[in-house]
Amino acid sequence: MNKSSSNTMALTPNTSNKRETVCIFGTGDFGRALGHKMIQSGYAVVYGSRSTQISNLIPKDAEVLGHAEAAQKAAVIIIAIQRQHYNFLTPLAEALHGKVLVDISNNLKLNQHPESNAEYLAQLLPGSKVVKAFNTVSAWALQSGTLDASRQVFVCGDDVEAKQMVMNIVRALGLTPLDKGSLLAAQEIENYPLQLFPMWKFPIFLSLGLAAFFFFYCVALDIIYTYIYENNNFSFFIAITIPNRVCPVMALILLALVYLPGIFAAIIQLHRGTKYRRFPDWLDKWMLCRKQLGLIALAFASLHAVFTLVSPLRAFVRWRISKGIISQALNNKTEPLNNTNAWLSDSYLALGILGYFLFVLLGITSLPSVSNNVNWREFRFVQSKLGYLALILCTAHTLVYGGKWFLSPSAYKWYLPNIYILSLIVPCAVLVVKFVLILPCIDKPLTQIRQGWERNPKYSE
Amino acid sequence: MNKSSSNTMALTPNTSNKRETVCIFGTGDFGRALGHKMIQSGYAVVYGSRSTQISNLIPKDAEVLGHAEAAQKAAVIIIAIQRQHYNFLTPLAEALHGKVLVDISNNLKLNQHPESNAEYLAQLLPGSKVVKAFNTVSAWALQSGTLDASRQVFVCGDDVEAKQMVMNIVRALGLTPLDKGSLLAAQEIENYPLQLFPMWKFPIFLSLGLAAFFFFYCVALDIIYTYIYENNNFSFFIAITIPNRVCPVMALILLALVYLPGIFAAIIQLHRGTKYRRFPDWLDKWMLCRKQLGLIALAFASLHAVFTLVSPLRAFVRWRISKGIISQALNNKTEPLNNTNAWLSDSYLALGILGYFLFVLLGITSLPSVSNNVNWREFRFVQSKLGYLALILCTAHTLVYGGKWFLSPSAYKWYLPNIYILSLIVPCAVLVVKFVLILPCIDKPLTQIRQGWERNPKYSE
Amino acid sequence: MNKSSSNTMALTPNTSNKRETVCIFGTGDFGRALGHKMIQSGYAVVYGSRSTQISNLIPKDAEVLGHAEAAQKAAVIIIAIQRQHYNFLTPLAEALHGKVLVDISNNLKLNQHPESNAEYLAQLLPGSKVVKAFNTVSAWALQSGTLDASRQVFVCGDDVEAKQMVMNIVRALGLTPLDKGSLLAAQEIENYPLQLFPMWKFPIFLSLGLAAFFFFYCVALDIIYTYIYENNNFSFFIAITIPNRVCPVMALILLALVYLPGIFAAIIQLHRGTKYRRFPDWLDKWMLCRKQLGLIALAFASLHAVFTLVSPLRAFVRWRISKGIISQALNNKTEPLNNTNAWLSDSYLALGILGYFLFVLLGITSLPSVSNNVNWREFRFVQSKLGYLALILCTAHTLVYGGKWFLSPSAYKWYLPNIYILSLIVPCAVLVVKFVLILPCIDKPLTQIRQGWERNPKYSE
Repeated sequence: MNKSSSNTMALTPNTSNKRETVCIFGTGDFGRALGHKMIQSGYAVVYGSRSTQISNLIPKDAEVLGHAEAAQKAAVIIIAIQRQHYNFLTPLAEALHGKVLVDISNNLKLNQHPESNAEYLAQLLPGSKVVKAFNTVSAWALQSGTLDASRQVFVCGDDVEAKQMVMNIVRALGLTPLDKGSLLAAQEIENYPLQLFPMWKFPIFLSLGLAAFFFFYCVALDIIYTYIYENNNFSFFIAITIPNRVCPVMALILLALVYLPGIFAAIIQLHRGTKYRRFPDWLDKWMLCRKQLGLIALAFASLHAVFTLVSPLRAFVRWRISKGIISQALNNKTEPLNNTNAWLSDSYLALGILGYFLFVLLGITSLPSVSNNVNWREFRFVQSKLGYLALILCTAHTLVYGGKWFLSPSAYKWYLPNIYILSLIVPCAVLVVKFVLILPCIDKPLTQIRQGWERNPKYSE
Repeated sequence: MNKSSSNTMALTPNTSNKRETVCIFGTGDFGRALGHKMIQSGYAVVYGSRSTQISNLIPKDAEVLGHAEAAQKAAVIIIAIQRQHYNFLTPLAEALHGKVLVDISNNLKLNQHPESNAEYLAQLLPGSKVVKAFNTVSAWALQSGTLDASRQVFVCGDDVEAKQMVMNIVRALGLTPLDKGSLLAAQEIENYPLQLFPMWKFPIFLSLGLAAFFFFYCVALDIIYTYIYENNNFSFFIAITIPNRVCPVMALILLALVYLPGIFAAIIQLHRGTKYRRFPDWLDKWMLCRKQLGLIALAFASLHAVFTLVSPLRAFVRWRISKGIISQALNNKTEPLNNTNAWLSDSYLALGILGYFLFVLLGITSLPSVSNNVNWREFRFVQSKLGYLALILCTAHTLVYGGKWFLSPSAYKWYLPNIYILSLIVPCAVLVVKFVLILPCIDKPLTQIRQGWERNPKYSE
Repeated sequence: MNKSSSNTMALTPNTSNKRETVCIFGTGDFGRALGHKMIQSGYAVVYGSRSTQISNLIPKDAEVLGHAEAAQKAAVIIIAIQRQHYNFLTPLAEALHGKVLVDISNNLKLNQHPESNAEYLAQLLPGSKVVKAFNTVSAWALQSGTLDASRQVFVCGDDVEAKQMVMNIVRALGLTPLDKGSLLAAQEIENYPLQLFPMWKFPIFLSLGLAAFFFFYCVALDIIYTYIYENNNFSFFIAITIPNRVCPVMALILLALVYLPGIFAAIIQLHRGTKYRRFPDWLDKWMLCRKQLGLIALAFASLHAVFTLVSPLRAFVRWRISKGIISQALNNKTEPLNNTNAWLSDSYLALGILGYFLFVLLGITSLPSVSNNVNWREFRFVQSKLGYLALILCTAHTLVYGGKWFLSPSAYKWYLPNIYILSLIVPCAVLVVKFVLILPCIDKPLTQIRQGWERNPKYSE
């Protein structure tokens, strides 16, 4: 649509439709890509360059002039050059006075310089109005028009009007500007495109490590032990059987780890008698990645659900079931329905289904567009009340499933406990301590502390 | 990121980077939490307080002065005191003249006062520019930095520049301001954090009530009846078998209830011959909670899907299947494939799968971020066309599944119909009436009415 | 909430709360609906009409005057008349001088006129400030208050203040204004409500066509062939068995088609030695609908998953399994576990589950609210790295599943290959070429080209 409308424009003689002229300093890749896109959107583009000889890489409708001349032609100048060459702009200070300079630069690593590139530019040219923008957009995306990823362009700057002018250009290119406030936000904006899921790193490494440990633990107990002592080759267990043991264990432990830091925080606050001291750093970080831990737990739970549901399709399971049926038929008898078994099997399935259902609800609530539409009270209700209910249901699911084997010696091959026993430690601990914390005699002082009361004001020094 | 950039700032001697001074009236919990956060973000904070004695609860980089003195130091004053103490600000009217006052107060219940707190403040101090903001943020979240819930801060006010100043502060604290217009919006903003899923209450209570009714109906027919007359103890049915009967019934009825109010509206409009009279209140409310009804129906349908898929894992189902196989084997014969049965079983499964698939599509389309990206025509297409298709498929799924039992006497224990017969009443009624409504002879006048035509203009008085 | 607060307002004598007067030209359906809503929200509404006789369709609190008189009463005039009658506004030019005119008109087809209605209005009345707004909202939705679809109102205009005034009205009506920049955006905004999933049309027709082809191919081979040569009536296969063959084939092919245009683009760039020439049109269009292709592939994969999971519930499958068990029992022997079979069955299930899991992750990442929260680097990582991994896993799933039949003659009924052999062609080709493209000797020049280097600058003329 955008394209066709700009084509129409190009044909219309009406000059009032012509957008203003924009100047671009620098004819590098991003400068050219941006120029192309701007010409497409109806802007006149002037490049400021050392050599004014027209390169055929530059969009053919653009003009190329010396820096000072080019700057005179436009109110907005896009600085498509690298930070280390910013010095050469100082002699142009007069030509750039009062102009809007758009800093689009990026760094190679996080917090590379003490101040952001945009702030550095603003210090070099105090008479110009520096706006940070466009650094989160890729040249390739601009060029090819396939803006699959975010169309958001973060914009910040100290001059409101300058910012508004740049935001209008952003909109005209079919992108969505997002005002991030004053130029102080530039460092954050410059760091943004360098990140690769920073909040996810620790949770992912933690869960990969734990999952690997449990995987090899199961391989040892279920394949190697069986091979040595029972001479059965169950190596194919590593495809589904063992993943389907590791996944629920991981889901349960990670879900408990989502609620554990809240428990620690409450204990620390109760102990200190104030909420006005910072938590230890590890706890702060842990609390900030609870959402990620929860979503990884949900992924493991989903895998567990699917692995379980496919089990009737597995050749091994079909063989085992038909072996049972055939042996009954050959012995000429039909076993009656074992009511206890029916109860146990139905209850752990039902508990698991309900727990998983709540878990998925929590996951949906954490989608940005959904969580933006609930208020703080609703979010607390879902994440805290329903979250604990999910934890209780999932723990009960595991307890009912494995209950009968707790005391059975076959569950302790090589004197090691089965992994579902290991998986219950953290969730049970969390649930027990949480239960203690909501006892009125403990909940009351905690609530007071969280409302700002202090037991021992000297602490808050 | 934010944190590290503000740390860098603190080290930079460049004073132009220092943000302006903000004054906070009131040293209560929220005032202190906001002050802490502002100092972290580079603002200078001055507290205005009755007792200027420095309390150690107050962030140590903040200054504490008398109200009038503190007000002089800043252009923006945050009123962190409760509405009932607003009177004491009237003597300060002169000191506050021209200042931006940020009302952050909340009420204890919805529409507690005839006018919003912010409007009340604006009436008390007509010379100041009142802006409503921050009331949806929790002190605990500000303090701990764990802003898991919405980062949106609703802002409203009559003075555009004052609003802009407050929105800049909001952005600097790492939150997202959302301009809600003039101060008239304050009442709505003050009501917002008090809500606990207001649109969900009626649908949830309705579905819990209906589900409970159907649950006990099934317990009576499937467990008690069987126990009394057949002496079988099927008590374990309450874990999965009965929930898996109640869930599909609920899903089908609630889905039909989503489309029923549209049918009523059409009939009322046809009867009245105009669209310019309000619908009865109950219909208005019903129409406003259709989305919620639909999502609850989707939840029940999902539970039904999972309960059905786990059935091959249930001890009871395995026992029943192996009993059948063993009895065939003992009788030395193999039953041939019953083609009709194969057709019936495959069709109701396929119908159910397709209906559920469309249902999930409807659910995804109702996610805020997706529905914001479709236009009105697309939304109508999905919610109306695909929605009715889903209803047709799900009704057909139930009909094919239960068809053979309609006339069977065993389906009428205690002369009561089986619940899937009950579940078909509403959806079939909706589909039949809808079919009548889309007949050209009825659709044409209805379309005219909806385009503004009136049969009988006297009605619209 | 909104409603109750405006009710409260209506009762409050405080006149400062009264919003300003808005004028509406035209008493058609949309003009009346908008007037109703505005009066509800506290505005005074004056209609400008040819006949000033008060029609009882018009909201009763509104005034009706001649156009010129009505225009004098308000700063904002909503032009609720059709484009073909805009001429009659020219005599009013003086009365409308300096006023904000809100163009709310829509067209009947895309790009109906050379310039947008709003631009046409601006040309007719150069002294007025034209703002485009409200055209994406439906009268029915405004009237009934059931704004289920998007609450977004696109606003554009050349005058910033005029735009701000209109955006305030939009907010006051409970809608969300979205600033789309200058009046040049009006054409796009006018086209918006006419679209019916424009990006989805080609992918949907392509996949329906392909699916129909594969469906009839399977019907021929699995039902007709079996009926003719083996005299078995497997007509019920069209409910589940054949859909469950078509769905995975479609999912795999469409997933490969998502990555194929990227492969073509790389080859074209390598051949041309530059990135500065446009791709052929078909490739451009193909690249723009990759997201849609991927989501349709995900839908097919989900149907495949569910169709597979229900198979133990199917009468046919139960019959086939019990036939096998009974024949073993009657022959008085139990087959031992076939370890190779167990391995094959578990591996293709595990590969399919993991591939589907990644596929769902890709789908979640393409939700607008999620993709807005990832930066370009993260988006590339997910869509490219994880996407290829999903393609590899799904291809391997198909290979392991069908591997043993490749050389079996029974797989070639009527000398035609089985469809899973057909389904492997595109994905295998994509994977092989991609593997070649990431070889260092080819990847290096490609990367250089994408960074702006040119092998042969004459091309870029």
